[in-house]
Amino acid sequence: MRKEFRDLASLAEAREVAQELTPEPTVEEVDIEDAGGMVLAETLRSPKDVPGFDRSKMDGYALQAEDTYDADEESPAELELAGSVSAGETPDLSVSTGVAVGIATGAPIPEGADAVVPVERTEAEDDVVLVRTSLAPGDHVMYAGSDVAAGERALSSGTLLTQREIGLAAATGRAKLPVYRQPKVAVVSTGDELVRPPGVLDSGQIHDSNTYSVAAAVESAGGEARIYPHVGDDYGRMVEVIAEAAAECDLVLSSGSTSASDEDVVYRVVEDEGSLLLHGVSLKPGRPTVFGSVDETSFVGLPGNPISALSVYRMFVEGMIREAAGLPREPETRTVDASFAAEVRTEGGRTRILPVGMVEDGSGDLLAYSVDRGSGATTSLTLADGYVTVESETNYVDRGEPVEVSVFADGSPPSVLGAGEADAAVASALEVVDSRWLDVSSREAARRLRDGVVDVAVVALSSEDLDSLGVSSYSRHSSYRRLVGFAGDPEDAEVYGVVPEGYGLRGWFEDEVSTDADVRVYRSEEGAYNAAEDGEVDAAAVGADVVPKDGAFEQRGWLDVDLLVADDRRTKSGVQQMLAAVDPDESDGFEGLQVPGDIGDDTG
Amino acid sequence: MRKEFRDLASLAEAREVAQELTPEPTVEEVDIEDAGGMVLAETLRSPKDVPGFDRSKMDGYALQAEDTYDADEESPAELELAGSVSAGETPDLSVSTGVAVGIATGAPIPEGADAVVPVERTEAEDDVVLVRTSLAPGDHVMYAGSDVAAGERALSSGTLLTQREIGLAAATGRAKLPVYRQPKVAVVSTGDELVRPPGVLDSGQIHDSNTYSVAAAVESAGGEARIYPHVGDDYGRMVEVIAEAAAECDLVLSSGSTSASDEDVVYRVVEDEGSLLLHGVSLKPGRPTVFGSVDETSFVGLPGNPISALSVYRMFVEGMIREAAGLPREPETRTVDASFAAEVRTEGGRTRILPVGMVEDGSGDLLAYSVDRGSGATTSLTLADGYVTVESETNYVDRGEPVEVSVFADGSPPSVLGAGEADAAVASALEVVDSRWLDVSSREAARRLRDGVVDVAVVALSSEDLDSLGVSSYSRHSSYRRLVGFAGDPEDAEVYGVVPEGYGLRGWFEDEVSTDADVRVYRSEEGAYNAAEDGEVDAAAVGADVVPKDGAFEQRGWLDVDLLVADDRRTKSGVQQMLAAVDPDESDGFEGLQVPGDIGDDTG
Repeated sequence: MRKEFRDLASLAEAREVAQELTPEPTVEEVDIEDAGGMVLAETLRSPKDVPGFDRSKMDGYALQAEDTYDADEESPAELELAGSVSAGETPDLSVSTGVAVGIATGAPIPEGADAVVPVERTEAEDDVVLVRTSLAPGDHVMYAGSDVAAGERALSSGTLLTQREIGLAAATGRAKLPVYRQPKVAVVSTGDELVRPPGVLDSGQIHDSNTYSVAAAVESAGGEARIYPHVGDDYGRMVEVIAEAAAECDLVLSSGSTSASDEDVVYRVVEDEGSLLLHGVSLKPGRPTVFGSVDETSFVGLPGNPISALSVYRMFVEGMIREAAGLPREPETRTVDASFAAEVRTEGGRTRILPVGMVEDGSGDLLAYSVDRGSGATTSLTLADGYVTVESETNYVDRGEPVEVSVFADGSPPSVLGAGEADAAVASALEVVDSRWLDVSSREAARRLRDGVVDVAVVALSSEDLDSLGVSSYSRHSSYRRLVGFAGDPEDAEVYGVVPEGYGLRGWFEDEVSTDADVRVYRSEEGAYNAAEDGEVDAAAVGADVVPKDGAFEQRGWLDVDLLVADDRRTKSGVQQMLAAVDPDESDGFEGLQVPGDIGDDTG
Repeated sequence: MRKEFRDLASLAEAREVAQELTPEPTVEEVDIEDAGGMVLAETLRSPKDVPGFDRSKMDGYALQAEDTYDADEESPAELELAGSVSAGETPDLSVSTGVAVGIATGAPIPEGADAVVPVERTEAEDDVVLVRTSLAPGDHVMYAGSDVAAGERALSSGTLLTQREIGLAAATGRAKLPVYRQPKVAVVSTGDELVRPPGVLDSGQIHDSNTYSVAAAVESAGGEARIYPHVGDDYGRMVEVIAEAAAECDLVLSSGSTSASDEDVVYRVVEDEGSLLLHGVSLKPGRPTVFGSVDETSFVGLPGNPISALSVYRMFVEGMIREAAGLPREPETRTVDASFAAEVRTEGGRTRILPVGMVEDGSGDLLAYSVDRGSGATTSLTLADGYVTVESETNYVDRGEPVEVSVFADGSPPSVLGAGEADAAVASALEVVDSRWLDVSSREAARRLRDGVVDVAVVALSSEDLDSLGVSSYSRHSSYRRLVGFAGDPEDAEVYGVVPEGYGLRGWFEDEVSTDADVRVYRSEEGAYNAAEDGEVDAAAVGADVVPKDGAFEQRGWLDVDLLVADDRRTKSGVQQMLAAVDPDESDGFEGLQVPGDIGDDTG
C-alpha cells in the first residue's frame, strides 16, 4: 500500500548524479556597474597601455634630474619656472636644462622632463623654484603601460569580480564585462498542507517557508531564484507548473511531496514527464530526495522539512548552482574544522545529516553542537550554522571528536552563545554583540555551561543545585530579580499552565502553589499565557514581561536569576563586550520589570 | 600659491566626524523574497502558534499510546485500522482504544490519539495494523505552538536575514518584513583627466575606475549605489551635480579633486555650498580626505588614487553605510590578526595606510605582505586583501610583527600564492584553485620564497643562484622550457626592448646578444613587444606566448624555468591541488609553446 524506497543510493552515487545534472555555465555581457559578485568568463587583456602616457605621481615640478644632482636642503638647485600642467591637459610646453614646470598629480610629464620633485621639497617665488633634494631620472614618474601594458593580462578568466577587480577592469576602459550568467533556478513548493504567507490557514495547514528559504539560498549561491505558484498535491497542476519552470529555467527545485506516502507525487511527475535518475538516498534526513530532468532541464526534489530541505540543498544543490555561475563548486571556505562540544548519539543505517550550531572556545577553536529541535521545527533553522555528516556505521560521536562542518551560506559562530532563562537585562546586553541564545531551562543551561557548549547561562539555581549538576569553572557575574505571577484566574484555578521542569518559574510555581497541582505543560511562557487566555487552563504562571500591556496579571513574587560566565570564555571579546553592557552600574534599561538583585524588593 | 593643509586632523578626530555624519537608519517594509541580506528592524513575534495544531512528525499511524504498552517485536499490538489522514486535511475521524488511523507526516493528530507509531515499526494488512513497539504519549507528535508560541519572539530586531531567518519568518506567516532601508549612496567622480569607460581618451586622460570600484564597495556594505554623471574640475558643474546627489541620497561620495593643488575644488564646493567639517587627515595616503555636509546630506570626498580611495572608504565610510543599513559598524570579522611576512619601512609623520595581501602559512596562520605598486597603479587593487595602519611614529615594521588587517569586502587569502616568471603550464594549474600570482622577476620571486611570503615560485635560476640568494627549504617540483626569441627586426637592431634585470628572459637576452647592447626596459614582455611594434625599439626579447597569433616572431631558443615549492607550504590543501594539476604526467595543456623540460628539444 505504501511504497518503500528500495535500493537507496549511496551519498557518493547521489553526488555523482548531482554533478551530471549541473547546468553548463553560459556567458553574457553585463554593464560593469552590475558585475559585482559575478565571475569573469574570459581572460581580460588590456587593449591599451594603462596609463597611456608618462604621468606624475605627485603634485610638484617636472624637471631634468641632472639639474638636481648636487642639490640638498642647504644648497638648493635654482630653476626657472616656465608654467604648469594640470591633470587631463596636453602639455604645450617643454622642459630644458635649468627649467621646471609645475605639475599636478596625474598630469602628463612635459617633453624634455624626466623626473618630478614633490612640492614639499621645493620653494617657489615668482618665476624661480628652489629644489632642495637631488633626483634620479624616473623619480615620481609613472611610465606609460607600467600599470598594465597593452596586451597584458589584467584579470584571469574565472576571477570573482569584487570592488577591486571592477576598478582594474574599468581602468582598462571596459564598460561591459563577459561574465557567467546567473543560472535561473525555479523554486516550486508542493503539498496541500502549505499556504504561502500571508494567506489564511485552514485547519491542518501551515505556512510555506521552504520557498523563501530555498530562494534566498539560491541567491546566496549566485543563482537567480524564480518563485513559481504553489502547487498542492495535485498531479495535473504539478505537471503544468514543473513543465513551465523547466522551460524557463536552468534548474528546477521542488520541496515537499517526495516521501513514499500515497500523496507524494513529485517523483511520479518526474518519472512520467521527464527522466527520473534517482529516488531515495541513504541519508537521514534526506532519504526521499529526487534527482532527474524534465524537458532536458535538471530537477531536484528536496524534502519538505525545512532544515532537511536546506541541508540537502547545501549538500547537493548549492555546488550545482555555484558551478553553473562559474564559481568553484565547493570552495575550501565552505567547510570548517570543529570538534563536538557534547556527545551525540545517532541511529545507524543511513548517513546522518546533523544540523549544528558553532561556537568559538576561549582559544578560538571551533566547537559544534547539535541543534535539531525535531522534525519540522523552523526554529532549528536559525540555530544552525551548518551540518555535520555522521557515517552510517557510527552510532556515537564523543565529545571532543573532530568533525567537518559544511557551512550554510552566512553561517558563522556568534560572538556570544548563551542559554537559559529569559532575562530582559541580559537580552538587551546581547543586542550589542552578534549573539545567539538557546532557549532552554535553567538545568539544561547549566548542563551546557558545564559541557563547554555555551559562554554564558542565565539560571535560577542555587550554588548547591549547580554543584549537584557538576557545574564548576564558572563565575556568577550578576543577579537579577524577575517579577512573576499569574495570568488568568489563580484563585479558583483547577488546572494551571506552566513551563517544563527545570525552569526557574516552574520551581517558583511549585513552591507557590503545590507540587500536586494539576498542570498542563507549555514549552514557553507565551504558550502558557495563551492557554490561559483561551481558557485551556484556568491560570498560567508567567513573568510580567510576557503579558501584553493591556493584559491582566496578578503579581505574586520575584524570581532570582543569575548570569553565569564560563571561566575559559572570559577572554572572548564578544563576552567582554556583553559583560560591559550588562553591568548594572552602567545599565538603565530595566523598565521596572526587573531590578538588580542587590537593590530589589524582597517580596515573597 | 598652493594651499597647504594646516592643522591635519588625527585619525581619531576623523573617525569621530565619520560617526557624526553617519545617516540615521530608516525602516521600510519589503517582500520577504527580497529581504535576504537585509537587517530586521523590529523584533518579530509570531501572531499565532506555529504549528497551529498538533501534527505528526512521521508517516505512520496515530493511536493511543496506552494500547501499545506491552508491544514489542515479538508480540505486536493489534489495532483496528479506521481510515487515514493526509497532510493539509481536517480529520473527520477519531481514535479510541484499540483503533489506529493512518497518518502522513505533517497531518493533524485525530481526536483521541496521543502518539504516532512510524510506519517502519508496523505491519498492515486489510483492516489490521500490527504495532511492534511500545509508545509513550507524545511520541512523534509535534504540539501546537511548540515551534513558536503565539506572542513568542521568533527573531530579534537587528538580525541579519539569511535563508534561515527568512524561512522562520515565513513560517510565522509574514509576507513582508520591516527592514532597515539600504541607504542611497551617491557616487560622484571628478577630475578633467578622467573619462568613463568606454569613452575615448584624449592625450593626458585616463579611465575613471573609482566610480565603479566605490559603487561596488557601497553595494557590498549594504548600500544602494547611485552613479552620477562625471564632473570635471568645473566648479559650477560640480555644485550642480553635488546638489542633485545630496537631494536624492543619504550620503554623497566623491573621489578625486581633493588635494591642495589649484584645480582641486571639491572642498571649496562643500565649504561654499554646505558645511565643511574637516579637510585634511594625518594619513598617508588619505591626507586630502574631505568631510562635510551639503543640504543636510553627509558628504565624504575620497582621494583620487584608486587604492587610496578604497582604503579611505574602508576606513571611514564603510562603517557609515553599514550602520545606516542596520548592520554592526565594524564587526569583528572585518579585521583579522596576521603577522608581517617581510619587513616594511615607512616614512613617519602621518599614520600610514599600507595595502597588504594575505597568505596562510603551513600551519594556517595569516601573513600580510605589502602590495602597493606605487601611486595610481590599479593593479595594486587586485593584490590587496585589506590594509594595515602603521602609527606615525613607526618607521620600520619587522618581519613577524603582529598586525591587524582591516579587510576589504571579499578580501581573503588565496589558496595558493605564487610569484615569478610567466609559465603557461603553471598558470593553467593555478586556475583549478583560488590562486594569486605576483608578477615579479625570478630573483624577486626567489627572495619572496626565501622570506616565507609565497607558497610557490617559478624561476629561471640555477641552484647556485638560489644558494647565493640564501634560498633554502624548498624543493624543485618540475621544470619547463619556454620558447623565446625576438619580435621586430633582431638582425640590424640598435635598440632592444627588454624586461628588467632579474627576469630569466633578460638573462637569456644578455647571453644571446650582449650585456652591452643598447636597451630600453619595459615592466612586461607585452610592453616590450608593443614597443617593437610601434617602432620605439628595433626588436624586443619576448616569449612566443606573448606574440599574437598573426604576429611576427623569430624563435631563438628555450628558457628553462623551474617550479619551486616552499617546504613548509606543502601541507596546504591548495598547494596540493595545484601540484596535482601541474604534474606533467597528468597535464595536457602545453599547446606547443612549452614542453616539460625533460622531453624538450635542446635548441640553443
